[in-house]
Amino acid sequence: MSAPRLAIEAVPGLPEVRPGDDLARVIHDSLAAASITLRADDVLVVAQKIVSKAEGRFVSLASISPSPRAEALAVEVDKDPRLVEIILGESADVVGAAPGVLVVEHLSGHVMANAGVDRSNVGTLDEDLVLLLPADPDASAAALRVGVERIAGVAPAVVVSDSIGRAWRNGTAAVAIGAAGLPALLDLCGLPDRDGRTLRVSLVGFADQIAAAAALVIGEGAEGLPVALVRGLRFDAPAVPAAALRRPRERDLFR
Amino acid sequence: MSAPRLAIEAVPGLPEVRPGDDLARVIHDSLAAASITLRADDVLVVAQKIVSKAEGRFVSLASISPSPRAEALAVEVDKDPRLVEIILGESADVVGAAPGVLVVEHLSGHVMANAGVDRSNVGTLDEDLVLLLPADPDASAAALRVGVERIAGVAPAVVVSDSIGRAWRNGTAAVAIGAAGLPALLDLCGLPDRDGRTLRVSLVGFADQIAAAAALVIGEGAEGLPVALVRGLRFDAPAVPAAALRRPRERDLFR
Repeated sequence: MSAPRLAIEAVPGLPEVRPGDDLARVIHDSLAAASITLRADDVLVVAQKIVSKAEGRFVSLASISPSPRAEALAVEVDKDPRLVEIILGESADVVGAAPGVLVVEHLSGHVMANAGVDRSNVGTLDEDLVLLLPADPDASAAALRVGVERIAGVAPAVVVSDSIGRAWRNGTAAVAIGAAGLPALLDLCGLPDRDGRTLRVSLVGFADQIAAAAALVIGEGAEGLPVALVRGLRFDAPAVPAAALRRPRERDLFR
Repeated sequence: MSAPRLAIEAVPGLPEVRPGDDLARVIHDSLAAASITLRADDVLVVAQKIVSKAEGRFVSLASISPSPRAEALAVEVDKDPRLVEIILGESADVVGAAPGVLVVEHLSGHVMANAGVDRSNVGTLDEDLVLLLPADPDASAAALRVGVERIAGVAPAVVVSDSIGRAWRNGTAAVAIGAAGLPALLDLCGLPDRDGRTLRVSLVGFADQIAAAAALVIGEGAEGLPVALVRGLRFDAPAVPAAALRRPRERDLFR
């Protein structure tokens, strides 16, 4: 058997995505223009930002009246109270707060700074507009997968990725906040190690690692490459959504 | 300009690595046997385990007399007191402890469970032997890079990877505990976003994402594929070791 080999490439030529766009169609057309034919065992990694844009998840700061709670927290974290109000509205819990830092559990269950609410690369210089995460990123991934299948006739797996800060380590790393068609969390429990001993560490953040790999070509800045195609991944396990990657509060030592 | 494209492949045919082995030679020979010619812009991702093995980082549990502190902590975390003694000896600080869980700051500064001390895939069924992390993983990466250059005439970047558990998320993800020849932490500060606004999130855990990408082909279990070759990465920044990825205690909300 040959050694595993992956190819990861950014999908070139995606136009600016706008609210109401059919993202499956946009991605399909860009792939077609690049003469890339999708396979059923491909994985499409799609930056959260364009999913949110297609879903019209914009909010204008001007429309927000911050609550007293948001006003108080805004002082603590040194942020715009209207932005803090939006973040709280997107959050199930505040996990950590300090000057410049507001880490929350997003309504989707993923823990991240600012509930993923973002001002950069939103496609406008209007300082008033911010972009929220998709309301249900696993559902977004599943819908995109179905949409692509409808157009292309094959259903690649889909990962919706976001770059988040981490406890204990500097720098962001991309993770999967949505997934469809692959095991976002991979259970190796019971596999033998090389010495014939049963593996004790059993759960791998498979879709997180796929998102991180894709981030190497998607880029973070002005490149305008929000979609990557990952080819050659092997997995032999039932599909599990990215919701499985959220560690429940009661099993988390670090909040 | 073409869109970025990465190829990531597991290096086949590596023999079991033993204490004292010249790891650069072992990897070079496996590449040569697979007809792979190294390039200066390649990245070699090497699983911590074989680096530790080559460095002879084995300890026998039978040689350990646990301290009272280790005995007490062992009860709390439900682990072998001798193992806890070894973990404490490898640690600068205990970050979190609960039944089955012992998260520490390793002497190298990286935060992880059990100080990376491992029993699986150590190359023996001797239940008494455990494997420690390299004492200085950045130095290991740098030495391996120099060793490869001496043999192959080119100096690819080197990442020493380990799979670690994370706060807030289920499943392990590979990170870089050692790096040479690339910017382990990438500073995008000052780059414009697509709308011409200066990017606010500026630090990317570049080597961590490379380690995660490589983990997709390196595998976790019985595959015996501890080295990956990453080809096609672009970066235009000075080399920074993996030590830059450690978040200092005083700037970490989560310990």
